[in-house]
Amino acid sequence: MRQLIALPLALLAASSAFAQDIPPDKVIHYRQGVYTMIGWNFGPMGAMVKGAVPFDAAEFAKRAERVAWLAQQVEEGFPPGSDTGATTDAKPAIWEDFADFQAKLADLKRESQALATTAKGSDEAATKAQFMKVAGTCKACHDLYRAD
Amino acid sequence: MRQLIALPLALLAASSAFAQDIPPDKVIHYRQGVYTMIGWNFGPMGAMVKGAVPFDAAEFAKRAERVAWLAQQVEEGFPPGSDTGATTDAKPAIWEDFADFQAKLADLKRESQALATTAKGSDEAATKAQFMKVAGTCKACHDLYRAD
Repeated sequence: MRQLIALPLALLAASSAFAQDIPPDKVIHYRQGVYTMIGWNFGPMGAMVKGAVPFDAAEFAKRAERVAWLAQQVEEGFPPGSDTGATTDAKPAIWEDFADFQAKLADLKRESQALATTAKGSDEAATKAQFMKVAGTCKACHDLYRAD
Repeated sequence: MRQLIALPLALLAASSAFAQDIPPDKVIHYRQGVYTMIGWNFGPMGAMVKGAVPFDAAEFAKRAERVAWLAQQVEEGFPPGSDTGATTDAKPAIWEDFADFQAKLADLKRESQALATTAKGSDEAATKAQFMKVAGTCKACHDLYRAD
């Protein structure tokens, strides 16, 4: 009987990433690392969009590519049980409606990928407009799910 | 005269990344984020190499690809002046012989790229052997440049 119960649990664990087995503090530090890298690359693009520094298409495209890549790595930093374990700005509401959180992450992934694509072209205005769309996906999630 | 001096400095700043203008604590948190992400992806590969978990070729290849990508992002986390500013394990020796540090990072980039390539194939033994080579490049740098 115990084996019959254990099997589905093992399959579930295998399909929902290894993060389940990692101590919550490590998971929290991981996701903070991803966000730190996103912010590091987002900052220079923001400075260009605001006009604080001259627009540099190659530099912008490089940063946009990185953010699109990093956006794919966020979700595995939010396994169940990682709401506590280290200092975290992640609100418990994330795990109360995880499907909504995932939808917001999907927005980030989609719009940041679109930015990476647009930034490879030569339409500076379109690139800047798309950047604002990505920034909107960040804000939409932070407003609901990040403590300040 | 001042303009003649200023121009090369401006060009130098542009060519050596924007990191120079960022407060040292942010730079330090950035590089710690990169290393955290590397460790997060390195861990599951290590567990497979040690046999602590079954070898999963697709999972291994995914992690190897990520580490190869992340290895490219390390160096901009070590601009001059970022030896202090927040708690850091980076030893001042890094900036005393930066060319040697760069050479060790080049080893990491080369061997982790080779791992990403090998891991896409079907030679599990070769993949595990190449993983050990990558681990060796980590250790070579940590032994000299990381305080424990």
